[in-house]
Amino acid sequence: METLHARYAHALDDDRLEDWPELFTESGKYRIATAENEARGLPLPVLSCDSRAMMRDRVQSLRHANVYEPQRYRHMLSSVLISHLDGERVSSVASFLVIRIMQNGDTAVFASGKYLDRILLSPEPKYEERVVVCDSRRFDTLLAIPL
Amino acid sequence: METLHARYAHALDDDRLEDWPELFTESGKYRIATAENEARGLPLPVLSCDSRAMMRDRVQSLRHANVYEPQRYRHMLSSVLISHLDGERVSSVASFLVIRIMQNGDTAVFASGKYLDRILLSPEPKYEERVVVCDSRRFDTLLAIPL
Amino acid sequence: METLHARYAHALDDDRLEDWPELFTESGKYRIATAENEARGLPLPVLSCDSRAMMRDRVQSLRHANVYEPQRYRHMLSSVLISHLDGERVSSVASFLVIRIMQNGDTAVFASGKYLDRILLSPEPKYEERVVVCDSRRFDTLLAIPL
Repeated sequence: METLHARYAHALDDDRLEDWPELFTESGKYRIATAENEARGLPLPVLSCDSRAMMRDRVQSLRHANVYEPQRYRHMLSSVLISHLDGERVSSVASFLVIRIMQNGDTAVFASGKYLDRILLSPEPKYEERVVVCDSRRFDTLLAIPL
Repeated sequence: METLHARYAHALDDDRLEDWPELFTESGKYRIATAENEARGLPLPVLSCDSRAMMRDRVQSLRHANVYEPQRYRHMLSSVLISHLDGERVSSVASFLVIRIMQNGDTAVFASGKYLDRILLSPEPKYEERVVVCDSRRFDTLLAIPL
Repeated sequence: METLHARYAHALDDDRLEDWPELFTESGKYRIATAENEARGLPLPVLSCDSRAMMRDRVQSLRHANVYEPQRYRHMLSSVLISHLDGERVSSVASFLVIRIMQNGDTAVFASGKYLDRILLSPEPKYEERVVVCDSRRFDTLLAIPL
Protein backbone atom coordinates (compact mmCIF):
# COMPACT_ATOMS: atom_id res chain seq x y z
CA MET A 1 0.00 0.00 0.00
CA GLU A 2 2.94 2.28 0.66
CA THR A 3 4.03 1.19 -2.80
CA LEU A 4 0.75 2.45 -4.28
CA HIS A 5 1.26 5.82 -2.57
CA ALA A 6 4.84 5.99 -3.88
CA ARG A 7 3.83 5.09 -7.44
CA TYR A 8 1.14 7.80 -7.32
CA ALA A 9 3.69 10.42 -6.24
CA HIS A 10 6.31 9.47 -8.82
CA ALA A 11 3.76 9.32 -11.67
CA LEU A 12 2.77 12.95 -11.05
CA ASP A 13 6.32 14.16 -10.35
CA ASP A 14 7.70 12.48 -13.49
CA ASP A 15 4.91 14.08 -15.53
CA ARG A 16 3.48 10.65 -16.38
CA LEU A 17 -0.07 11.96 -15.98
CA GLU A 18 -1.45 9.11 -18.13
CA ASP A 19 -0.41 6.65 -15.40
CA TRP A 20 -2.41 8.51 -12.78
CA PRO A 21 -5.93 7.14 -13.58
CA GLU A 22 -4.53 3.60 -13.76
CA LEU A 23 -3.87 3.70 -10.01
CA PHE A 24 -7.63 3.86 -9.40
CA THR A 25 -10.31 1.22 -9.80
CA GLU A 26 -12.63 1.59 -12.80
CA SER A 27 -15.25 3.35 -10.66
CA GLY A 28 -12.65 5.07 -8.51
CA LYS A 29 -13.40 8.50 -7.05
CA TYR A 30 -11.02 11.41 -6.73
CA ARG A 31 -11.68 14.84 -5.33
CA ILE A 32 -9.82 17.82 -3.96
CA ALA A 33 -11.38 19.75 -1.08
CA THR A 34 -10.28 22.23 1.54
CA ALA A 35 -10.09 21.51 5.26
CA GLU A 36 -12.36 24.48 5.86
CA ASN A 37 -15.09 23.15 3.57
CA GLU A 38 -14.79 19.63 4.94
CA ALA A 39 -15.15 20.93 8.52
CA ARG A 40 -18.29 22.88 7.59
CA GLY A 41 -19.76 19.94 5.71
CA LEU A 42 -19.95 21.96 2.52
CA PRO A 43 -20.29 19.49 -0.31
CA LEU A 44 -18.59 21.40 -3.11
CA PRO A 45 -15.11 20.14 -3.78
CA VAL A 46 -12.52 22.08 -5.73
CA LEU A 47 -12.13 19.30 -8.23
CA SER A 48 -13.98 16.01 -8.58
CA CYS A 49 -13.77 12.88 -10.73
CA ASP A 50 -16.29 10.06 -10.32
CA SER A 51 -14.62 7.42 -12.46
CA ARG A 52 -11.37 6.47 -14.10
CA ALA A 53 -12.85 7.59 -17.44
CA MET A 54 -13.30 11.11 -16.06
CA MET A 55 -9.71 11.11 -14.88
CA ARG A 56 -8.50 10.10 -18.35
CA ASP A 57 -10.54 12.95 -19.85
CA ARG A 58 -8.98 15.28 -17.35
CA VAL A 59 -5.49 14.23 -18.33
CA GLN A 60 -6.36 14.65 -22.03
CA SER A 61 -7.57 18.19 -21.37
CA LEU A 62 -4.41 19.04 -19.48
CA ARG A 63 -2.26 17.67 -22.29
CA HIS A 64 -4.09 19.71 -24.93
CA ALA A 65 -4.41 22.89 -22.91
CA ASN A 66 -0.74 23.79 -22.85
CA VAL A 67 -1.50 27.22 -21.53
CA TYR A 68 0.50 26.96 -18.36
CA GLU A 69 4.09 27.76 -17.72
CA PRO A 70 6.03 24.49 -17.60
CA GLN A 71 6.66 23.39 -14.06
CA ARG A 72 7.51 20.41 -11.93
CA TYR A 73 6.05 19.06 -8.75
CA ARG A 74 7.55 17.06 -5.92
CA HIS A 75 5.20 15.16 -3.62
CA MET A 76 6.33 14.27 -0.12
CA LEU A 77 4.32 11.81 1.98
CA SER A 78 4.39 11.15 5.70
CA SER A 79 2.56 9.68 8.69
CA VAL A 80 0.49 7.00 6.99
CA LEU A 81 -2.11 5.59 9.41
CA ILE A 82 -4.00 2.48 8.31
CA SER A 83 -7.34 1.10 9.46
CA HIS A 84 -8.59 -2.16 8.06
CA LEU A 85 -12.12 -2.07 6.78
CA ASP A 86 -12.45 -5.72 5.86
CA GLY A 87 -10.31 -8.41 4.27
CA GLU A 88 -10.47 -6.72 0.87
CA ARG A 89 -10.05 -3.06 1.74
CA VAL A 90 -8.02 -0.73 3.90
CA SER A 91 -8.59 2.92 4.58
CA SER A 92 -5.72 5.20 5.39
CA VAL A 93 -4.83 8.76 6.11
CA ALA A 94 -1.49 10.31 5.16
CA SER A 95 0.02 13.78 5.26
CA PHE A 96 1.35 15.30 2.07
CA LEU A 97 3.39 18.26 0.97
CA VAL A 98 3.70 19.37 -2.64
CA ILE A 99 6.62 21.49 -3.78
CA ARG A 100 6.35 23.36 -7.07
CA ILE A 101 9.39 24.14 -9.19
CA MET A 102 8.90 26.80 -11.85
CA GLN A 103 10.89 26.81 -15.06
CA ASN A 104 13.10 29.64 -13.85
CA GLY A 105 14.09 27.45 -10.91
CA ASP A 106 11.95 29.10 -8.24
CA THR A 107 10.95 26.47 -5.69
CA ALA A 108 8.22 26.86 -3.08
CA VAL A 109 5.67 25.01 -1.00
CA PHE A 110 2.62 24.71 -3.24
CA ALA A 111 0.15 22.71 -1.14
CA SER A 112 -0.10 20.71 2.06
CA GLY A 113 -2.81 18.57 3.55
CA LYS A 114 -3.88 14.99 3.97
CA TYR A 115 -5.00 12.15 1.76
CA LEU A 116 -8.04 10.17 2.89
CA ASP A 117 -7.90 6.90 1.00
CA ARG A 118 -9.96 3.76 0.54
CA ILE A 119 -7.89 1.09 -1.16
CA LEU A 120 -8.99 -2.15 -2.78
CA LEU A 121 -6.22 -4.69 -2.15
CA SER A 122 -6.77 -7.33 -4.81
CA PRO A 123 -5.79 -8.29 -7.50
CA GLU A 124 -3.37 -5.41 -6.95
CA PRO A 125 -3.83 -2.40 -4.67
CA LYS A 126 -5.77 0.45 -6.28
CA TYR A 127 -7.59 3.49 -4.97
CA GLU A 128 -11.35 3.15 -4.71
CA GLU A 129 -11.36 6.69 -3.39
CA ARG A 130 -8.77 9.37 -2.75
CA VAL A 131 -9.92 12.61 -1.12
CA VAL A 132 -7.29 15.34 -1.05
CA VAL A 133 -8.00 17.69 1.86
CA CYS A 134 -5.87 20.81 1.46
CA ASP A 135 -4.86 22.84 4.51
CA SER A 136 -5.04 26.15 2.70
CA ARG A 137 -8.21 27.74 1.43
CA ARG A 138 -6.32 29.46 -1.32
CA PHE A 139 -5.74 27.90 -4.69
CA ASP A 140 -4.36 29.26 -7.84
CA THR A 141 -5.56 28.20 -11.24
CA LEU A 142 -2.81 25.63 -11.60
CA LEU A 143 -4.75 23.34 -9.32
CA ALA A 144 -6.11 21.84 -12.54
CA ILE A 145 -3.21 19.40 -12.14
CA PRO A 146 -3.91 16.50 -9.74
CA LEU A 147 -2.44 16.68 -6.27
CA MET B 1 6.42 2.94 16.80
CA GLU B 2 6.02 4.58 13.41
CA THR B 3 2.32 4.50 14.27
CA LEU B 4 2.99 6.48 17.46
CA HIS B 5 4.90 9.10 15.45
CA ALA B 6 2.07 9.29 12.92
CA ARG B 7 -0.62 9.62 15.60
CA TYR B 8 1.39 12.43 17.19
CA ALA B 9 1.60 14.32 13.89
CA HIS B 10 -2.07 13.93 13.02
CA ALA B 11 -3.22 14.93 16.52
CA LEU B 12 -1.44 18.27 16.21
CA ASP B 13 -2.35 18.85 12.56
CA ASP B 14 -6.04 18.06 13.19
CA ASP B 15 -6.00 20.50 16.11
CA ARG B 16 -6.75 17.67 18.55
CA LEU B 17 -4.38 19.15 21.12
CA GLU B 18 -6.10 17.25 23.93
CA ASP B 19 -4.87 13.99 22.43
CA TRP B 20 -1.26 15.16 22.52
CA PRO B 21 -0.49 14.49 26.25
CA GLU B 22 -2.10 11.05 25.97
CA LEU B 23 0.73 9.91 23.71
CA PHE B 24 3.16 10.27 26.63
CA THR B 25 3.58 8.19 29.76
CA GLU B 26 2.30 9.70 33.02
CA SER B 27 5.78 10.98 33.88
CA GLY B 28 6.67 11.69 30.25
CA LYS B 29 9.01 14.56 29.43
CA TYR B 30 8.73 16.98 26.53
CA ARG B 31 10.97 19.84 25.64
CA ILE B 32 11.85 22.05 22.71
CA ALA B 33 15.45 23.16 22.30
CA THR B 34 17.66 24.58 19.58
CA ALA B 35 20.53 22.75 17.91
CA GLU B 36 22.80 25.61 18.89
CA ASN B 37 21.94 25.34 22.58
CA GLU B 38 22.20 21.56 22.57
CA ALA B 39 25.67 21.72 20.96
CA ARG B 40 26.86 24.19 23.58
CA GLY B 41 25.38 22.16 26.42
CA LEU B 42 23.23 25.08 27.50
CA PRO B 43 20.50 23.67 29.69
CA LEU B 44 17.72 26.15 29.01
CA PRO B 45 15.14 24.77 26.63
CA VAL B 46 12.65 26.92 24.79
CA LEU B 47 9.74 25.01 26.25
CA SER B 48 9.66 22.20 28.78
CA CYS B 49 7.06 19.87 30.34
CA ASP B 50 8.04 17.34 33.00
CA SER B 51 4.85 15.31 33.15
CA ARG B 52 1.64 14.58 31.33
CA ALA B 53 -0.18 16.81 33.82
CA MET B 54 1.97 19.77 32.76
CA MET B 55 1.17 19.04 29.15
CA ARG B 56 -2.55 19.02 29.88
CA ASP B 57 -2.18 22.38 31.63
CA ARG B 58 -0.34 23.67 28.60
CA VAL B 59 -3.16 22.61 26.29
CA GLN B 60 -5.74 24.22 28.59
CA SER B 61 -3.80 27.49 28.48
CA LEU B 62 -3.61 27.39 24.71
CA ARG B 63 -7.34 26.74 24.45
CA HIS B 64 -8.18 29.67 26.70
CA ALA B 65 -5.65 32.10 25.32
CA ASN B 66 -7.20 32.52 21.90
CA VAL B 67 -5.00 35.44 21.15
CA TYR B 68 -3.37 34.02 18.08
CA GLU B 69 -4.46 34.21 14.52
CA PRO B 70 -6.05 30.87 13.56
CA GLN B 71 -3.63 28.67 11.69
CA ARG B 72 -2.92 25.10 10.71
CA TYR B 73 0.19 23.01 10.88
CA ARG B 74 1.38 20.10 8.81
CA HIS B 75 4.07 17.85 10.27
CA MET B 76 6.27 15.81 7.95
CA LEU B 77 8.49 13.05 9.32
CA SER B 78 11.43 11.28 7.77
CA SER B 79 14.54 9.16 8.35
CA VAL B 80 13.56 7.37 11.55
CA LEU B 81 16.57 5.56 13.05
CA ILE B 82 15.92 3.16 15.93
CA SER B 83 18.25 1.87 18.61
CA HIS B 84 17.02 -0.66 21.11
CA LEU B 85 17.71 0.22 24.70
CA ASP B 86 16.33 -2.94 26.27
CA GLY B 87 13.35 -5.23 25.82
CA GLU B 88 10.93 -2.57 27.06
CA ARG B 89 12.23 0.58 25.42
CA VAL B 90 13.52 1.89 22.14
CA SER B 91 15.18 5.19 21.45
CA SER B 92 14.92 6.80 18.06
CA VAL B 93 15.85 9.87 16.10
CA ALA B 94 13.72 11.26 13.27
CA SER B 95 13.82 14.36 11.09
CA PHE B 96 10.81 16.64 11.01
CA LEU B 97 9.50 19.55 9.03
CA VAL B 98 6.55 21.68 10.10
CA ILE B 99 4.61 23.74 7.58
CA ARG B 100 2.39 26.55 8.84
CA ILE B 101 -0.72 27.61 6.99
CA MET B 102 -2.14 31.00 7.97
CA GLN B 103 -5.82 31.81 7.69
CA ASN B 104 -5.28 33.88 4.55
CA GLY B 105 -3.78 30.78 2.94
CA ASP B 106 -0.11 31.74 3.18
CA THR B 107 1.95 28.58 3.52
CA ALA B 108 5.59 28.42 4.59
CA VAL B 109 8.18 26.29 6.30
CA PHE B 110 7.76 27.01 10.01
CA ALA B 111 10.32 24.76 11.67
CA SER B 112 12.70 21.90 10.94
CA GLY B 113 14.83 19.70 13.13
CA LYS B 114 14.95 16.31 14.74
CA TYR B 115 13.02 14.41 17.38
CA LEU B 116 15.06 12.53 19.97
CA ASP B 117 12.68 9.99 21.48
CA ARG B 118 12.63 7.38 24.22
CA ILE B 119 9.61 5.16 23.83
CA LEU B 120 8.09 2.71 26.30
CA LEU B 121 6.69 -0.19 24.25
CA SER B 122 4.15 -1.81 26.55
CA PRO B 123 1.20 -2.01 27.14
CA GLU B 124 1.09 0.31 24.12
CA PRO B 125 3.90 2.50 22.75
CA LYS B 126 4.11 5.89 24.47
CA TYR B 127 6.77 8.56 24.70
CA GLU B 128 8.80 8.57 27.90
CA GLU B 129 10.67 11.51 26.47
CA ARG B 130 10.52 13.57 23.32
CA VAL B 131 13.16 16.26 22.78
CA VAL B 132 12.49 18.53 19.82
CA VAL B 133 15.80 19.94 18.56
CA CYS B 134 15.09 22.80 16.15
CA ASP B 135 17.58 23.67 13.41
CA SER B 136 16.88 27.37 13.60
CA ARG B 137 17.76 29.60 16.52
CA ARG B 138 14.91 31.91 15.72
CA PHE B 139 11.44 31.40 17.11
CA ASP B 140 8.39 33.49 16.98
CA THR B 141 5.89 33.67 19.79
CA LEU B 142 3.66 31.05 18.24
CA LEU B 143 6.03 28.39 19.45
CA ALA B 144 3.66 28.08 22.41
CA ILE B 145 2.03 25.36 20.32
CA PRO B 146 3.75 21.93 20.53
CA LEU B 147 5.98 20.92 17.66
CA MET C 1 17.94 -0.15 3.05
CA GLU C 2 15.67 2.51 4.50
CA THR C 3 18.21 2.55 7.32
CA LEU C 4 20.99 3.38 4.84
CA HIS C 5 18.93 6.27 3.46
CA ALA C 6 18.25 7.52 7.00
CA ARG C 7 21.92 7.30 8.02
CA TYR C 8 22.86 9.26 4.89
CA ALA C 9 20.40 12.04 5.73
CA HIS C 10 21.40 12.32 9.38
CA ALA C 11 25.15 12.32 8.56
CA LEU C 12 24.71 15.39 6.34
CA ASP C 13 22.23 17.13 8.63
CA ASP C 14 24.41 16.60 11.71
CA ASP C 15 27.41 18.00 9.79
CA ARG C 16 29.21 14.65 10.03
CA LEU C 17 30.49 15.00 6.47
CA GLU C 18 33.31 12.54 7.16
CA ASP C 19 30.71 9.78 7.57
CA TRP C 20 29.26 10.47 4.14
CA PRO C 21 31.85 8.61 1.96
CA GLU C 22 31.66 5.61 4.31
CA LEU C 23 28.10 4.93 3.16
CA PHE C 24 29.44 4.12 -0.32
CA THR C 25 31.40 1.13 -1.58
CA GLU C 26 35.10 1.69 -2.30
CA SER C 27 34.38 2.28 -6.00
CA GLY C 28 31.05 3.96 -5.32
CA LYS C 29 29.80 6.67 -7.64
CA TYR C 30 28.05 9.88 -6.69
CA ARG C 31 26.81 12.64 -8.92
CA ILE C 32 24.38 15.53 -8.91
CA ALA C 33 22.49 16.33 -12.09
CA THR C 34 19.41 18.28 -13.11
CA ALA C 35 16.19 16.76 -14.40
CA GLU C 36 16.50 18.91 -17.50
CA ASN C 37 19.97 17.62 -18.34
CA GLU C 38 19.01 14.02 -17.64
CA ALA C 39 15.97 14.31 -19.94
CA ARG C 40 18.12 15.70 -22.75
CA GLY C 41 20.79 13.06 -22.24
CA LEU C 42 23.41 15.70 -21.57
CA PRO C 43 26.28 13.96 -19.85
CA LEU C 44 27.64 16.80 -17.76
CA PRO C 45 26.60 16.51 -14.15
CA VAL C 46 26.77 19.39 -11.72
CA LEU C 47 29.04 17.45 -9.39
CA SER C 48 30.62 14.03 -9.77
CA CYS C 49 32.70 11.63 -7.67
CA ASP C 50 33.90 8.32 -9.10
CA SER C 51 35.18 6.70 -5.92
CA ARG C 52 35.09 6.91 -2.16
CA ALA C 53 38.58 8.44 -2.26
CA MET C 54 37.25 11.34 -4.34
CA MET C 55 34.44 11.84 -1.85
CA ARG C 56 36.93 11.98 1.02
CA ASP C 57 38.94 14.59 -0.90
CA ARG C 58 35.76 16.54 -1.43
CA VAL C 59 34.99 16.54 2.28
CA GLN C 60 38.55 17.63 3.09
CA SER C 61 38.23 20.56 0.67
CA LEU C 62 34.94 21.60 2.22
CA ARG C 63 36.43 21.44 5.71
CA HIS C 64 39.40 23.62 4.72
CA ALA C 65 37.49 26.05 2.56
CA ASN C 66 35.47 27.68 5.32
CA VAL C 67 34.36 30.42 3.02
CA TYR C 68 30.67 29.83 3.36
CA GLU C 69 28.26 31.23 5.82
CA PRO C 70 27.53 28.58 8.44
CA GLN C 71 24.28 26.81 7.73
CA ARG C 72 22.33 23.67 8.44
CA TYR C 73 20.46 21.32 6.19
CA ARG C 74 17.50 19.08 6.79
CA HIS C 75 16.89 16.22 4.37
CA MET C 76 13.41 14.77 4.02
CA LEU C 77 12.85 11.51 2.16
CA SER C 78 9.68 10.00 0.74
CA SER C 79 8.17 7.49 -1.69
CA VAL C 80 10.94 4.91 -1.84
CA LEU C 81 10.31 2.42 -4.66
CA ILE C 82 12.53 -0.68 -4.79
CA SER C 83 13.34 -2.97 -7.69
CA HIS C 84 15.53 -6.01 -7.11
CA LEU C 85 18.40 -6.35 -9.53
CA ASP C 86 19.71 -9.65 -8.29
CA GLY C 87 20.32 -11.37 -4.97
CA GLU C 88 23.13 -8.99 -4.08
CA ARG C 89 21.80 -5.64 -5.23
CA VAL C 90 18.67 -3.52 -5.20
CA SER C 91 17.99 -0.36 -7.12
CA SER C 92 15.61 2.24 -5.78
CA VAL C 93 14.18 5.64 -6.44
CA ALA C 94 13.16 8.06 -3.70
CA SER C 95 11.97 11.64 -3.54
CA PHE C 96 13.88 14.14 -1.45
CA LEU C 97 13.50 17.64 -0.16
CA VAL C 98 16.34 19.63 1.39
CA ILE C 99 15.66 22.55 3.69
CA ARG C 100 18.44 25.06 4.36
CA ILE C 101 18.65 26.97 7.61
CA MET C 102 20.93 30.02 7.56
CA GLN C 103 22.69 31.24 10.67
CA ASN C 104 20.26 34.11 11.10
CA GLY C 105 17.47 31.54 11.29
CA ASP C 106 16.07 31.98 7.79
CA THR C 107 14.62 28.67 6.62
CA ALA C 108 13.69 27.81 3.05
CA VAL C 109 13.35 24.99 0.57
CA PHE C 110 16.83 24.58 -0.91
CA ALA C 111 16.46 21.66 -3.29
CA SER C 112 14.04 18.94 -4.33
CA GLY C 113 14.36 15.96 -6.62
CA LYS C 114 14.89 12.24 -6.62
CA TYR C 115 17.66 9.84 -5.68
CA LEU C 116 18.40 7.03 -8.14
CA ASP C 117 20.30 4.42 -6.14
CA ARG C 118 22.05 1.12 -6.69
CA ILE C 119 22.76 -0.55 -3.38
CA LEU C 120 25.05 -3.47 -2.59
CA LEU C 121 23.39 -5.42 0.23
CA SER C 122 26.21 -7.39 1.78
CA PRO C 123 28.14 -7.45 4.10
CA GLU C 124 26.18 -4.32 5.00
CA PRO C 125 24.11 -2.11 2.67
CA LYS C 126 26.19 0.53 0.89
CA TYR C 127 25.65 2.72 -2.16
CA GLU C 128 27.33 1.51 -5.34
CA GLU C 129 25.84 4.54 -7.01
CA ARG C 130 23.71 7.48 -5.98
CA VAL C 131 22.54 9.90 -8.66
CA VAL C 132 20.87 13.04 -7.32
CA VAL C 133 18.48 14.41 -9.93
CA CYS C 134 17.43 17.92 -8.95
CA ASP C 135 14.08 19.33 -10.07
CA SER C 136 15.37 22.85 -10.44
CA ARG C 137 17.89 23.97 -13.03
CA ARG C 138 19.15 26.68 -10.77
CA PHE C 139 21.92 26.13 -8.27
CA ASP C 140 23.78 28.47 -6.11
CA THR C 141 27.42 28.05 -5.23
CA LEU C 142 26.62 26.25 -2.01
CA LEU C 143 25.90 23.13 -3.97
CA ALA C 144 29.50 22.20 -3.19
CA ILE C 145 27.97 20.44 -0.19
CA PRO C 146 26.56 16.96 -0.93
CA LEU C 147 22.82 16.64 -1.30
